[in-house]
This record gives sequence, structure tokens and C-alpha cells, in this order.
Amino acid sequence: MQEYIQSIAIDMDETIADPITKAREWYYRDFGTTFTEEDLIGKHLSDVVPEEHSGIIHKYLNTPGFFRDLGVFPDAVEVIRELNKKYRVFIVSAAMEFPASLQDKYHWLEDNFPFLTWRQVCLCGDKTVVGTDFMIDDLTRNLQPFKGKGFLYTQHHNLHVEGYERLLNWADAGNKLL
Amino acid sequence: MQEYIQSIAIDMDETIADPITKAREWYYRDFGTTFTEEDLIGKHLSDVVPEEHSGIIHKYLNTPGFFRDLGVFPDAVEVIRELNKKYRVFIVSAAMEFPASLQDKYHWLEDNFPFLTWRQVCLCGDKTVVGTDFMIDDLTRNLQPFKGKGFLYTQHHNLHVEGYERLLNWADAGNKLL
Repeated sequence: MQEYIQSIAIDMDETIADPITKAREWYYRDFGTTFTEEDLIGKHLSDVVPEEHSGIIHKYLNTPGFFRDLGVFPDAVEVIRELNKKYRVFIVSAAMEFPASLQDKYHWLEDNFPFLTWRQVCLCGDKTVVGTDFMIDDLTRNLQPFKGKGFLYTQHHNLHVEGYERLLNWADAGNKLL
Repeated sequence: MQEYIQSIAIDMDETIADPITKAREWYYRDFGTTFTEEDLIGKHLSDVVPEEHSGIIHKYLNTPGFFRDLGVFPDAVEVIRELNKKYRVFIVSAAMEFPASLQDKYHWLEDNFPFLTWRQVCLCGDKTVVGTDFMIDDLTRNLQPFKGKGFLYTQHHNLHVEGYERLLNWADAGNKLL
């Protein structure tokens, strides 16, 4: 009898990939101001820009190339390589809001996580379509309706959130899940 | 207390969209021969082309633009418009094998199913990531591991398959699901 292998959905943006550093850089390029990490505690980047720039972050995120060369969080590659031996790993990104990002995200994964295959990539809209056993995500709106066990990946914007088991970083994820 | 609304994952290719007619047209354009619908009974298009052309169908499917203007099956729009009032509808396509198709598929849905939103689109690899209540798909490899209730959407290639509840076409889907 085949052993059941548990499945795990791992988010991209702000969980394994860092779009915030790039968005801050582009914002500095365009407006000559930036934000500290303290400004972002409990907030999303779109919350801290002035009201007249409220659409600008969305515009960045839907610019072809934006997601193509983002930084990867420390230890994410090494820990996910090991998770991939123990779980059925899926990379699940709510990317559909930004259709220009789809191919970039695919190729970014190909570059940074070459041990994953196309079968393990899921670019969706609402994550309630996902039915894995575990989910790692920085957004409570994805974890809250999830029927499996969720882990909140700690980011500045969710520091005040309570009621979720946290993964502080990928080293912590390795300790808890491997 | 909020009523639970059942969710349904609807496949794209050969369920709502017709890539076969276009692939046959391109094959005729390139090689001057084509296939009858009878040739395709119990077979995929890639099974009926000569061995030396075995990669050609895959190449067509990963050509930018291929999926952008496919035909829609009769009654699919009308029935899915109604399903969308009764269920949480997701369009789920195992598109990740063809990264050049991703944006085309998004825009095709936008054109043909304008009443759906980006939140309802899921472009994935292996459909075992999906956890909806129902799934409509022409491929048994997607339905077989699915934990909800699956419906096999009848196509030439699956005519000999047994053991699945079938939807013969979208009118039939409307009768069974609405």
C-alpha cells in the first residue's frame, strides 16, 4: 500500500520572494523618497505611500519584468529542497491579479528552484481553490479560509497578527516541518 | 450563519475551449494532411501524428498566441454564467507545461467569460493541488486522484473510458448541475 505523502502549498511573494525591496527601490527612483522597515510594521507598502500614489504599487506589480529577478529569502532554497523530499510541495501564488507577472513568476521559479517542476507550480486568484494539507503564507486572508493547517510566515505587515502558528523565517520552517 | 456554497473546478482545454480544431488546422498548414474525428476516437492528437512529428503538437501549444483565440464549446458560456450564481466557480487549467500560454489563457477567459473575475482563475501544473467540491475535466488523470466528485467531460479521446459520471456537453452539464 502506497504511503500517503502530505502536501504543502508555499506562497511566493513575501514568503520566498522579496517584492518589497524592489518596490521600495522603484518608488525611490520615481519619487525620491522611501520607507524604513519600521514604517511597514503592521502595514502593506500600498498603505504607507501617499494617497495620490495609491495605484502606483499595483502598477509596479503588473509591469513585465518586475517579478523576474526578485531576491530570494535566506535559507528558502535549501529548506524547500528538503521539504520537497518529504512532502508534495506546491508553490502557490495569487498571481492572477497581475497577469503580466505570470510568465516572470514561472521563470523565476525555474531559475531559483530548479529542483521543482512545472507540475508543482500553481498561479491562482483566490486561494480557496487550494486543497493541500499545509499552507505557508504571509497573508491571513489566504490562511483564514484554508481547511488544512496554516502557518503564518512572519513579515513586517503581519507582526501584530495573533492566532496563527508562525514561521519566523526559513530556518524556523525547517525546524518545524522537517 | 452563512450558507456553505459548493465549489467547482472547470477545466479549460477540451472542456470549455477547443484547442484541437486549431492544432489540426496548424498541422494541415505545416504538413498538408489532417485527421478525421474518427481518427481521434480513444486517442489524443499527439497519438495520431506520425512518430517523427511527436513533438510538434507540444510546440504548437507553447507558441504565444495559440490559446488566445480558441473556439468556445456550445452553451459553455451560458451554462457557466448560471453555475457562477450557484457555485463558487474556478476555471482550473493545467497550463504550467506551456508557460507561453499563461497570459493568453487569462485574456481568453477575460474575453469569453467576462462575468468571471481574476479571483476565479487557476493556472496550475498537477491538479492534485485543487481542493474543490466538484471537478469537470476531460482527462481521467485529473479526475482519478481528485477527492471531490468528478465529472468526465466527453471528448473523442475519452469515449472508451468507463467508471466516471459523464457530462456529454454543456447542455447536459446544465441539466445535471443547475
